[in-house]
Amino acid sequence: MKKLEDYVVSIPDFPEPGIIFRDVTSILQDADGLAMAIDSIREMVKNLDYDVVVGPESRGFIFGVPVAYAEHKSFVPIRKKGKLPRETITAKYDLEYGTAEIEIHKDGIKPGQKVVVVDDLIATGGTTEAIAGLIEQLGGKVVKLCFVMELAGLKGRERLAGYDVESAIIYEGK
Amino acid sequence: MKKLEDYVVSIPDFPEPGIIFRDVTSILQDADGLAMAIDSIREMVKNLDYDVVVGPESRGFIFGVPVAYAEHKSFVPIRKKGKLPRETITAKYDLEYGTAEIEIHKDGIKPGQKVVVVDDLIATGGTTEAIAGLIEQLGGKVVKLCFVMELAGLKGRERLAGYDVESAIIYEGK
Repeated sequence: MKKLEDYVVSIPDFPEPGIIFRDVTSILQDADGLAMAIDSIREMVKNLDYDVVVGPESRGFIFGVPVAYAEHKSFVPIRKKGKLPRETITAKYDLEYGTAEIEIHKDGIKPGQKVVVVDDLIATGGTTEAIAGLIEQLGGKVVKLCFVMELAGLKGRERLAGYDVESAIIYEGK
Repeated sequence: MKKLEDYVVSIPDFPEPGIIFRDVTSILQDADGLAMAIDSIREMVKNLDYDVVVGPESRGFIFGVPVAYAEHKSFVPIRKKGKLPRETITAKYDLEYGTAEIEIHKDGIKPGQKVVVVDDLIATGGTTEAIAGLIEQLGGKVVKLCFVMELAGLKGRERLAGYDVESAIIYEGK
């Protein structure tokens, strides 16, 4: 039987030399792969008490919304600055080159709500750290951070120490 | 009982004066609204014979992937040019100001596969027409175009004449 990692196509030197890009679209492109990816995240959260799934634009939408739908939770998107139409709060964080700004709707999380974050990939953990900060700023509690893939060599777990982190596939490199 | 349209927050004069923005994130923010939106699209496709769900970045991901997951189909994303890592084909189409380019992976659709397109909104139908063109260029057959919301005043259905179009909520205006 195929495992989830068998559906991931690895693309050497994309988007730049020395980087191995792990493509999640190749998982989705097979109905069995898609089901296995979503089921693996549902498995991570099955015994948790939580209210909301949060996922960042745009690959966090791919994995977060089906989990929210299947578990009858709400879904709150994180988007790049300027894309959400109602009142938002913003987080600014450092990228390798420059900075990024992401937003969440101010009424997306109510104080005391328990939140699961879902994304395709944990690399350095910088984006996820910013997301957790937005959730906490709104009074939410981050109960778990769930990923399809993890690049362990980039030490995202160290940056996210104190949070419950789980990934379906762990690659040792970067 | 609440209807799906009750979950949509309408924002006047966003992103510019005279436009009423229909916000789908407010549907997702409620577990019942999210379930109702996905169920309404599943209802549109329940008697169809198809293999693949296609959805465009990024709100098409929100509604397309849960349908693919629940119906055990594959999901193939349409993205803005330069974001898909493997070999693609590209469509260029006109916007109100300027042009846009979207892509699909060349191996995303196999010749003869039947495809359902899911997106949040049909407005002029320009993006959807370009998506249908990409699917057909790969030898796929578009069996249905499904939307959460339709702005009927923009006459997207006329532009997409010949396709089976269905929307969960129809707004008469623009």
